[in-house]
Amino acid sequence: MALSIPLSWSLSTAHLVIEASATAAFALSGVIVAARRRLDAVGVCVVAGLTAFGGGTLRDVLLDRRPFFWVEQHGYVWAVLLLCIASMVFLRTRHFEPTEQAMQWPDALGLGLFTASGTQIALSAQMPALVAVLMGLVTAVFGGVLRDIVCNQIPAAFRDHRPYAVCAFAGGWVVVGTTALHWPDWATLTTGAACATLLRALALWRDWRLPVWRHDETGDTR
Amino acid sequence: MALSIPLSWSLSTAHLVIEASATAAFALSGVIVAARRRLDAVGVCVVAGLTAFGGGTLRDVLLDRRPFFWVEQHGYVWAVLLLCIASMVFLRTRHFEPTEQAMQWPDALGLGLFTASGTQIALSAQMPALVAVLMGLVTAVFGGVLRDIVCNQIPAAFRDHRPYAVCAFAGGWVVVGTTALHWPDWATLTTGAACATLLRALALWRDWRLPVWRHDETGDTR
Amino acid sequence: MALSIPLSWSLSTAHLVIEASATAAFALSGVIVAARRRLDAVGVCVVAGLTAFGGGTLRDVLLDRRPFFWVEQHGYVWAVLLLCIASMVFLRTRHFEPTEQAMQWPDALGLGLFTASGTQIALSAQMPALVAVLMGLVTAVFGGVLRDIVCNQIPAAFRDHRPYAVCAFAGGWVVVGTTALHWPDWATLTTGAACATLLRALALWRDWRLPVWRHDETGDTR
Repeated sequence: MALSIPLSWSLSTAHLVIEASATAAFALSGVIVAARRRLDAVGVCVVAGLTAFGGGTLRDVLLDRRPFFWVEQHGYVWAVLLLCIASMVFLRTRHFEPTEQAMQWPDALGLGLFTASGTQIALSAQMPALVAVLMGLVTAVFGGVLRDIVCNQIPAAFRDHRPYAVCAFAGGWVVVGTTALHWPDWATLTTGAACATLLRALALWRDWRLPVWRHDETGDTR
Repeated sequence: MALSIPLSWSLSTAHLVIEASATAAFALSGVIVAARRRLDAVGVCVVAGLTAFGGGTLRDVLLDRRPFFWVEQHGYVWAVLLLCIASMVFLRTRHFEPTEQAMQWPDALGLGLFTASGTQIALSAQMPALVAVLMGLVTAVFGGVLRDIVCNQIPAAFRDHRPYAVCAFAGGWVVVGTTALHWPDWATLTTGAACATLLRALALWRDWRLPVWRHDETGDTR
Repeated sequence: MALSIPLSWSLSTAHLVIEASATAAFALSGVIVAARRRLDAVGVCVVAGLTAFGGGTLRDVLLDRRPFFWVEQHGYVWAVLLLCIASMVFLRTRHFEPTEQAMQWPDALGLGLFTASGTQIALSAQMPALVAVLMGLVTAVFGGVLRDIVCNQIPAAFRDHRPYAVCAFAGGWVVVGTTALHWPDWATLTTGAACATLLRALALWRDWRLPVWRHDETGDTR
């Protein structure tokens, strides 16, 4: 799979590897949800693409940034398309369904990195701190939200009772704080991404729950 | 709750009070719908924010206006966040569920004001009359539409059989008409908002229904 | 119905006729889906408008093009509004429900034309080939996707197992290919639209299915 992605020099190879695996993790989660809802092959590809690129695209529309990152580096679109075809063939021949558990770790990585990069992009566009954090959150979370809306279910990020968007929110504030301390770009990016990812990993490992805010929550019949 | 909202001088205090109560009413309606659909705390905040800011943001994306009003005056975002937390705590401790009836009056105010300001903004962006009216309608109605889409239900504004968007549509034309008569800005804004709000209030008070257009509508099994 | 549509000269009369019938077909499909889901009169008009204009609008937002085609030629909005009212009156008096079969042929025409024009617009905005094809696909397909999302069902284009988006995808590549061969604009437009439309017509006539990618697809319980 020889992709000729025009790398900007500021994008280190490490960053690229993490971003690519995050995009792949989000795309795979789209494939899984679409397969569960019995979409056809086209639907699977579209939902995977929406999940992988939707958050960043919405952020760029809100910030009025062009071109989109998947327009500049459209190797990503090809990669997601190939990934979908490969995983559909694989699912068909193996009767294997990738578990949500296996997906959670690259997804946590993607959450952290998309949060940090989204917040940093918004800060460099002179957004106020709170708005920048929201943009990081949109980048990390709204791909999955669009996936769930198209698949006609309430977004998992909003009803799961496990911290997901909250980790992105916290990671965004770390980026804002370290930027205010004039840390270099790579340091704010790494620290913010690490904080969000670690929080999410801790939440998964310890099975943290959001504080219950309704007494009848225990009898939840989702 | 000391908000340092940078007021533009053209925004009178009266306008601000009405706009703030409209935003609060829309946010509260988001909290209620989200609670009914059993979203978690994060989902409640996101849905409340979408309801309060979604319509104006969509209008600004369509008109290509930046910055968004909640970016310029990000005190609004903090206020909605605090409102969500306060209402969740309140709902938890009191087992009190605010009725839809109590919400309808500030909601009608919000409908009127968002319609008038949305239409006026579109007119000042040189949009044709019909498009300006549609933009006012989008501002007033699409926050609630996004709320219902995220909560996985058909938007209430589209199946309720009570005039809602129609009031916004009428109010928008009032703004267009008074602007064509060269009324000053504050007069078009006030008249348009008053017309839309009064129409909505009348519709609620008299229990008006949209004309039935299907014979089997009476056996409606929503 | 005397519409004073300000025609740009590059838009031939033939193009206009096809585009208008495509818009009408998409709007009608919106009316039908909305009626089935028992929306009220306002909901029917909004869903019809979303179906007819949603794809092109999303494309223009993604490409950052303004004004939208329905802002420039807002006769279209009036036409769709009148069409909705006429079809609601007609549906009420005749108990006649236009079948999906009757809709498929203008819909196939619309699919082809919107694909070709969307791809061409993106190419002339200097988008890479794959992105241009995706923009053509968005133009042709996302009106129907928005229609289905608002009506709270999984988009038909993603679960129908009959080629729909695939025809748009193929037609888009024809536009890209003929543009690379320096064919004149009208020739690329016509050839691309014809290919997508014919593919869709063939698929309908021959009852083609997308390759099954899950063994349990046969027991599909949509």
